[in-house]
Amino acid sequence: MTGRDGGAEIRPIGNSPVVILVRPQLADNIGAVARAMANGGLFHLRLVEPRDGWPQEKAWRNSSGADRILDAATVHATVPEAVADLHRVFATCPRPRHIVKPVLTARGAAAELRAVCGRALRAGILFGPERAGLDNDDMACADALVRYPLNPAFMSLNLAQAVMVMAYEWWTAADQTAPRTLMTNETHVASKGELENFLVHLVDQLDACGFLRNKPKRPGMVRNIRHFFQRGEVTEQELRTLHGVVTELAIGRRTRGRLEPDMMDG
Amino acid sequence: MTGRDGGAEIRPIGNSPVVILVRPQLADNIGAVARAMANGGLFHLRLVEPRDGWPQEKAWRNSSGADRILDAATVHATVPEAVADLHRVFATCPRPRHIVKPVLTARGAAAELRAVCGRALRAGILFGPERAGLDNDDMACADALVRYPLNPAFMSLNLAQAVMVMAYEWWTAADQTAPRTLMTNETHVASKGELENFLVHLVDQLDACGFLRNKPKRPGMVRNIRHFFQRGEVTEQELRTLHGVVTELAIGRRTRGRLEPDMMDG
Repeated sequence: MTGRDGGAEIRPIGNSPVVILVRPQLADNIGAVARAMANGGLFHLRLVEPRDGWPQEKAWRNSSGADRILDAATVHATVPEAVADLHRVFATCPRPRHIVKPVLTARGAAAELRAVCGRALRAGILFGPERAGLDNDDMACADALVRYPLNPAFMSLNLAQAVMVMAYEWWTAADQTAPRTLMTNETHVASKGELENFLVHLVDQLDACGFLRNKPKRPGMVRNIRHFFQRGEVTEQELRTLHGVVTELAIGRRTRGRLEPDMMDG
Repeated sequence: MTGRDGGAEIRPIGNSPVVILVRPQLADNIGAVARAMANGGLFHLRLVEPRDGWPQEKAWRNSSGADRILDAATVHATVPEAVADLHRVFATCPRPRHIVKPVLTARGAAAELRAVCGRALRAGILFGPERAGLDNDDMACADALVRYPLNPAFMSLNLAQAVMVMAYEWWTAADQTAPRTLMTNETHVASKGELENFLVHLVDQLDACGFLRNKPKRPGMVRNIRHFFQRGEVTEQELRTLHGVVTELAIGRRTRGRLEPDMMDG
């Protein structure tokens, strides 16, 4: 919720789908929708019959700087008018209706939207009013319905949250981020050879201090230690630190080793 | 945003991760978080040092009936105390920090959480305060960071939206819904044989009315018509309607055919 100054960096990214809010009731929600759209790289917003008219100051105040999306929003009298220039239209619909349409998950819809927009066709997604959702006439304007897989025991989904899920899936459908990476910043993941150097250093010191003095148990203990340090990726910086820890512990022991007899003398 | 009466049907679903809000500022947001958790089938909520104390009436008012989640929420003095009984902790973190940790996408985190929770271990996800996000000490309590793939040009993500994305991915990670289906309700998708019956009926009538009288062009025209009707799935109900449309159009033509000579006579 960082404050922003006019959202100057928000602009359309490629050919992205239009978000169409049908009879939205609360200007706060329209602002929150714009913010969610910006999060997911969507830009084009159309409003069909906003209950309290348009523009509404409240929307801008609740958009956390997604101003340009609201500045560029257009108002339409009917759903057919709002979708007239589009080639593919999806309608979000939380509950089964007496209607025969393909039904997509949010992820399936995002994949199809990417495919459609990639062909330079114009696409749009209809979102219904806060309380009632889209009616059957609205849905008749759509090629397919989108139903999110969410907890059927709690269907009350906020309008901006509904847009957020779709915007998130839209962005993610083009994202190539690996599901798991190691963030290392200035340092690098250590090689197995560097790790081996450390393990040799460690085991030497453990031998020296007598920790591994039980000969029959020694191989298993060494193996356990090696397993632990092999478990996750370790960085070069961390290895330097671990070398230091072992060296300093060993020096401390030698120091104590020297001190202890003195103390016993005293 | 349907009104609800106490959210009586919300209960824990299996072994689900704990949502931990660290130093949350606005009770409205805590309520919206509970609602998003309910949407994604999460139940366990912990609050570390909520700025305005706890409980806060506003949270309940903004949760759209996810009351039970708020009723069961616990308050903790520190992050280490809040995660002490957990086996795996993830920290949501929008920006790179000087910290060496595995980094997961929301989807990657959801898959790992499903795996961890499936082994009957307890997992948790840390979400930072609205303005500042988690600090380095908070993140030090986590096994891995979660960074959402979202528009880097607009990083201002609302707290409840951040929880929504994670809750949505948690639910979706267990969901088996096909990305595309056809919703047919009371009727069924027609077989190819039923469609063929209709196409024969249609072509017969088109021959009868003379629409296909151009012999060289006839095969291509018939093929085009067949392609159109084969493009999407059609239901048995729709085929009955289409049979009716063709029959009635043909009767209308015959009727006009009878009338026209009369009119010419007159």
